[in-house]
Amino acid sequence: MATLIAPDDFSAVADAEALKKAFHGWGTNEKAVIAILGHRNAAQRKLIWKAYEEKYQENFIKRLESELSGHFEKAMYRWIFDPSDRDALLVNVAIKKVPDYRVIVEMSCIKSPEDFLIVKRAYQIRYKRSMEEDVAAQTSGDMRKLLVALVGVHRYAGGEIDTKLAKSEADILNKAIKDKVLNHDEIIRIISTRSKAQLMATRNHYKDDHGISISKHVTHSPSSEFSSALRAAIKCLTEPKKYYEKVLRNALKQKGTDEDALTRVIVTRAEVDLEEIKDLYYKRNNVTLEHAVAKETSGDYKSFLLTLLGKND
Amino acid sequence: MATLIAPDDFSAVADAEALKKAFHGWGTNEKAVIAILGHRNAAQRKLIWKAYEEKYQENFIKRLESELSGHFEKAMYRWIFDPSDRDALLVNVAIKKVPDYRVIVEMSCIKSPEDFLIVKRAYQIRYKRSMEEDVAAQTSGDMRKLLVALVGVHRYAGGEIDTKLAKSEADILNKAIKDKVLNHDEIIRIISTRSKAQLMATRNHYKDDHGISISKHVTHSPSSEFSSALRAAIKCLTEPKKYYEKVLRNALKQKGTDEDALTRVIVTRAEVDLEEIKDLYYKRNNVTLEHAVAKETSGDYKSFLLTLLGKND
Repeated sequence: MATLIAPDDFSAVADAEALKKAFHGWGTNEKAVIAILGHRNAAQRKLIWKAYEEKYQENFIKRLESELSGHFEKAMYRWIFDPSDRDALLVNVAIKKVPDYRVIVEMSCIKSPEDFLIVKRAYQIRYKRSMEEDVAAQTSGDMRKLLVALVGVHRYAGGEIDTKLAKSEADILNKAIKDKVLNHDEIIRIISTRSKAQLMATRNHYKDDHGISISKHVTHSPSSEFSSALRAAIKCLTEPKKYYEKVLRNALKQKGTDEDALTRVIVTRAEVDLEEIKDLYYKRNNVTLEHAVAKETSGDYKSFLLTLLGKND
Repeated sequence: MATLIAPDDFSAVADAEALKKAFHGWGTNEKAVIAILGHRNAAQRKLIWKAYEEKYQENFIKRLESELSGHFEKAMYRWIFDPSDRDALLVNVAIKKVPDYRVIVEMSCIKSPEDFLIVKRAYQIRYKRSMEEDVAAQTSGDMRKLLVALVGVHRYAGGEIDTKLAKSEADILNKAIKDKVLNHDEIIRIISTRSKAQLMATRNHYKDDHGISISKHVTHSPSSEFSSALRAAIKCLTEPKKYYEKVLRNALKQKGTDEDALTRVIVTRAEVDLEEIKDLYYKRNNVTLEHAVAKETSGDYKSFLLTLLGKND
């Protein structure tokens, strides 16, 4: 369930006018910006953007950027785009820095194959290259093998399960993980090509037949970027909400807070399943996500995140 | 240009009736079957299939199979399906036997990214698994790396070219090929992820800067299944019609003729670009493709192929 509170009834033109007013003069009225855009769904935001540019003949995004600043600006910049465009942008940023495998794994493993395809198309339109070629060009070795396979695959999305196969592939995975050969071709093949339903079955067999969860078992190998990426992929494919809860937990418990991760999860999930992620967070940490966010952030950034988390102002 | 000669005006019901009549009694009237189905495009064939089943409450494909035999039956069975369904079927057959890398390379490298996606979707609907997972499960080692990458990628289809990149990647390819390390990760990365337009530019730089065509240079390495597959991929990506001409040439000059390859190229290209492939064939072999086909085949199979090649009866 989404946490976003958006009205059924709204006027794109009235919103555009109110935003223009909030931008006007010395100092932006950030509260007004949050009160409007923090309560509009993707389709509504798109219409406001369009209405604003038609009415004022001004680039809406540029104006927004010039009016806001810091983490608040960054979060709003993620929020204002069409989700597939925003996700393409997030992946591109992730590819360029380090690259940050987490975002690439998240997008490729959590989204449905059809939704991820839409993001890959948006990526091509924006960057005139495929996501696959950019990931491949910026990575190497085992990490390249894993990430390119995850990004490239168009998984089967049906619910059919082959139980015999799940059992035999659980054994293949177990052997490779027990031998601490995490970069084994068979691990990459199974994780990167099987359908989510099939992988769930394999994961259950793993636990039943080998007495340990696969993602925990992976941690028995020496820790490396590759092992973390593999573990993230397994978690994203089989328990995405738990995965997000952990990203939030780590982002908030870090000294200095990982705002990029915090913003990403809240902005990308507010219209999808942030309600369930909040529940998981509370169960795991004995404190509400709102409370933790309020404690670790401040100012307009804090107000905006809390608004997306469903706080009614 | 297509070689198929199909009427603009036709009646699906009249065709269904004529086919029913051709099937009737002892011995099928194969000539009538060819005269109808050999002159109908994909959309028309689909309507005939539907009209037949509605009118006679009988599985059209099963009836067709029971009426025909040998290579003719096989060719008709390829022809009658919706192209994306047929291509999915061809890939599935190829995966199961050996696997036959040629068909997998052809489909993944010659089709446009969007068309290939349609085939991958048809594959999932037919087999309840993704093409990626089946290819991955049936291959291993370098061949798996290459084929899974080719099948998995959704290439950028735009025409933009990065000349600097083409030059630098031509050098990377040249170094690996000169060192006879055809399974180099960088070769697989470049061939499997770059757009066709970009690869054309890279190929031109290769020839200009290194004085040999890339696909010829590959043959300097010891011949192996992998080197053939790599070469096929390069040819399919950069000169698909020449690739098909060669498949036909090899199929026809073999002792005993390779009917599978012959049927596949004619059936899959008759509605696309078989006219240009015929021209290339003539230029290369000083004999028309029709003449060569007539010489190497016989009976209804021969009549059917010649009909698809544009022979007007």
